[in-house]
Amino acid sequence: MSKDASRLFDDEGLKVSHVASEEKYKGAIIRVFREEVELPNGAHRHWDVVRHLGAVCVVPIDEDGNVIMVRQFRYPAGRVMLEIPAGKLESKDDDRLLRAKKELKEETGATAKEWICLGDIFTTPAYVDERITMYLAKGLEFGETDLDEGEFLTSLKMPLEEAAALVTEGKIEDAKTQAALLRAYVMKLQGRL
Amino acid sequence: MSKDASRLFDDEGLKVSHVASEEKYKGAIIRVFREEVELPNGAHRHWDVVRHLGAVCVVPIDEDGNVIMVRQFRYPAGRVMLEIPAGKLESKDDDRLLRAKKELKEETGATAKEWICLGDIFTTPAYVDERITMYLAKGLEFGETDLDEGEFLTSLKMPLEEAAALVTEGKIEDAKTQAALLRAYVMKLQGRL
Repeated sequence: MSKDASRLFDDEGLKVSHVASEEKYKGAIIRVFREEVELPNGAHRHWDVVRHLGAVCVVPIDEDGNVIMVRQFRYPAGRVMLEIPAGKLESKDDDRLLRAKKELKEETGATAKEWICLGDIFTTPAYVDERITMYLAKGLEFGETDLDEGEFLTSLKMPLEEAAALVTEGKIEDAKTQAALLRAYVMKLQGRL
Repeated sequence: MSKDASRLFDDEGLKVSHVASEEKYKGAIIRVFREEVELPNGAHRHWDVVRHLGAVCVVPIDEDGNVIMVRQFRYPAGRVMLEIPAGKLESKDDDRLLRAKKELKEETGATAKEWICLGDIFTTPAYVDERITMYLAKGLEFGETDLDEGEFLTSLKMPLEEAAALVTEGKIEDAKTQAALLRAYVMKLQGRL
């Protein structure tokens, strides 16, 4: 084992290359491909890839240190989850910050004066290409919500510390919400929020 | 907005129910379904669902406070990612802790004396049912690695603080790795590790 920061992401000896792909399913928000790839040892194999436009999510924090969350039924998981506001891009070149502002307004009614980018997550990069950009929003002002048709959710607020505790107690299970809330919580612990 | 801990996960007015499903693709690690669901307002619509057996991941921490990481090319993302050791279940009733022990040994050569469950993440619950159980492993002893055929990765170690900094700097992008490393880092900051 060795560590050299400049080589952490070097793909020598690890790269998997595209050979061919066949579309297997085209749905409303995903496309599924069975691809042929070449492994680092030259062997070929098949790889399933789910392609998604990508998404954004927001940790909205009000002036009292509360985070605004949403409750939403997640059909594949079979239950209600407590999450931060989020939404998928509508096209490949959708502006991520603009999309985040729209989703925050639609789902919680809030607009924010200050936006801080927290970087990206790949939700499950072994077989999905979805990349979610995370933001932290401060200086909130509240107006009317404007949910998409067919979107059912309710919003609530709680102290950031309490939301972080729900993550560490295993009650918040959504990956982007865990990552983004813990990012915000670490910033707060480090006096950077 | 309101908050009442006992009702945070109540699905009244939010539940989406199964009506029918049609399998659209059966791959090596995923199955894709186009399902018909009933929304809370009684309307019906289609919902794409990717079904996956689930997975486990491990934050392995050695006696010097280093975390053992793996470098791996993630084809859907098109690049090498720095992640914690992980692997998918091999069947629906695969024992998750046992699977985590096997994956840690296979990918890093390590066995661990102490295992702490950190709870679960759903990677992207809008359209995938994958649930990953996260563990923290301490009391490491190192032997030989034993990678699956067609699996190419290298391992390295770095202080937990340095790994957490790579998360907050946006250099570690894998969702499970961000969530699990930040969980471990918060435990350390709180003196619980």
